[in-house]
Amino acid sequence: MTALGLPMTVPAQDLPERVRIHEVGARDGLQNEKSTVPTEVKAEFIHRLADAGLTTIEATSFVHPKWVPQLADAEDLFPKLGGLREVALPVLVPNRRGLDRALVLGARRVAVFASATESFAKANLNRTLDESLAVFDPVVRHAKDAGVHVRGYVSMCFGDPWEGPVPLHQVVRVCTALRDMGCDELSLGDTIGVATPGHVLELLALLNEEGVPTNMLGVHFHDTYGQALANTYAALEHGVTTIDASAGGLGGCPFAKSATGNLATEDLVWMLQGLGIETGVDLGRLTATSVWMAEQLGRPSPSRTVRALSHKDQ
Amino acid sequence: MTALGLPMTVPAQDLPERVRIHEVGARDGLQNEKSTVPTEVKAEFIHRLADAGLTTIEATSFVHPKWVPQLADAEDLFPKLGGLREVALPVLVPNRRGLDRALVLGARRVAVFASATESFAKANLNRTLDESLAVFDPVVRHAKDAGVHVRGYVSMCFGDPWEGPVPLHQVVRVCTALRDMGCDELSLGDTIGVATPGHVLELLALLNEEGVPTNMLGVHFHDTYGQALANTYAALEHGVTTIDASAGGLGGCPFAKSATGNLATEDLVWMLQGLGIETGVDLGRLTATSVWMAEQLGRPSPSRTVRALSHKDQ
Repeated sequence: MTALGLPMTVPAQDLPERVRIHEVGARDGLQNEKSTVPTEVKAEFIHRLADAGLTTIEATSFVHPKWVPQLADAEDLFPKLGGLREVALPVLVPNRRGLDRALVLGARRVAVFASATESFAKANLNRTLDESLAVFDPVVRHAKDAGVHVRGYVSMCFGDPWEGPVPLHQVVRVCTALRDMGCDELSLGDTIGVATPGHVLELLALLNEEGVPTNMLGVHFHDTYGQALANTYAALEHGVTTIDASAGGLGGCPFAKSATGNLATEDLVWMLQGLGIETGVDLGRLTATSVWMAEQLGRPSPSRTVRALSHKDQ
Repeated sequence: MTALGLPMTVPAQDLPERVRIHEVGARDGLQNEKSTVPTEVKAEFIHRLADAGLTTIEATSFVHPKWVPQLADAEDLFPKLGGLREVALPVLVPNRRGLDRALVLGARRVAVFASATESFAKANLNRTLDESLAVFDPVVRHAKDAGVHVRGYVSMCFGDPWEGPVPLHQVVRVCTALRDMGCDELSLGDTIGVATPGHVLELLALLNEEGVPTNMLGVHFHDTYGQALANTYAALEHGVTTIDASAGGLGGCPFAKSATGNLATEDLVWMLQGLGIETGVDLGRLTATSVWMAEQLGRPSPSRTVRALSHKDQ
């Protein structure tokens, strides 16, 4: 359809020169898949993502297999990634036991998954907000003692399916608590995709005011209402340089077959490449990887860039 | 899925207070539909769009029926819209004959459809760029003599399927030519959806330098690579207040069933409402209209907001 396999590069003013994409497809993207994805396929997926130039690839979760059966193979998968020495491979750990499992295998980066709302803490973790923070506290401290980098996910920062609007001060409270525990990095999640750019900018400004610097903040947008990339652009203008995305747009809300959940890494890379912001990612290789993964899963990628580029190649 | 039928409103700094959405679903959205949409359905669609609060609704095209069979009923459709006195109802006119047909029916706003590239002028109009501008010149002048508002579409402003990148000075040349003919408004089209925000800002700045003020510029983005809303946000920051969109995301490239073409009006309204920018549009009514139209066409809307909100209602 187009002679352009890449966008024209025309920088905009005052944007970061380089962005680190935190690729979540292998963990967040796959965790809700109904049919079990073979461990070998997951390992190949992660190796292909690394070959495409991604430098931070969230690999799996050391959660109890009962809760996330799809990721029950964490102990088998993680050792298969040993060759990826140049790539950061964070893993999710829900509690102390998960952390211990990850540390035994040599994980150097872990992530905890907190909520900004009581309702989601209850639904996802079966705890109150404060109870869930109390669980994370020794996990983060122990990880830091072990010299491991810790990311704190904060979900439902911009809206909650049960509560509706989420007060910003509540998000800030959770973020500062995670920082005080020792988290190196926070990922601000718009889990249901309702945020718009002003909302994003206000939260970022408020966090800065409360002593959380932009360079420890990542953004994790969902495309449920098509807003993810506009929100990303606003976050870039604020100076954010860590952006979560999922290859091929894997994952997200399970309400539709072509679920429009996580921001697709390809759509993000198209914009960043157009803006002249370095990511190290080869868009053609990444797209080929997502097309391959879509074949493994038996359904097309919801990423618009993947669809446009893969059609072009046909 | 969410308790939020609307986004939280959190304005961003230095954006326009109000935006005029130029709704193109009934013309641009439907023109490539293979099965004929009955005139009554088109009329109801436009009336519903007006009920949802849209104030500029491009109604049809007075092109030769041989080229766009779907819009061959322009003479039947246009008189059915007589009751919409508060709504601007521009119509596309390809040449002097089309203009005369529109004027006879009392059209008060017309649009001509130019290209920024030789290849598309050739493919779409079977003329060179200069030949096509020469055809538009008497059309625009005659329309102005008749006291009619004239919009000039400039397609392929950011990339061309045959030529690839499009030099900005060439876009500026076409835009200034249309302005000099007397066009009241120009719509900058990213027909293949490849633009990114820096590219958009550079074209807008260059046009301003060449004496084309922002208040005569509209933007027309396609979501082929998922970039439309990020580009729109950048254009808003530049001060653009006329934004083209298509209800339900109708239209666009015909290469896929769920073609990701025109920016969906609902996705746009979600962002504008979140930013506190007035549009006059009722998002619930608009979504209901797009769901209804999708039923008429027998396939789901590609708009992410329509999918999310219509699922929520189930």
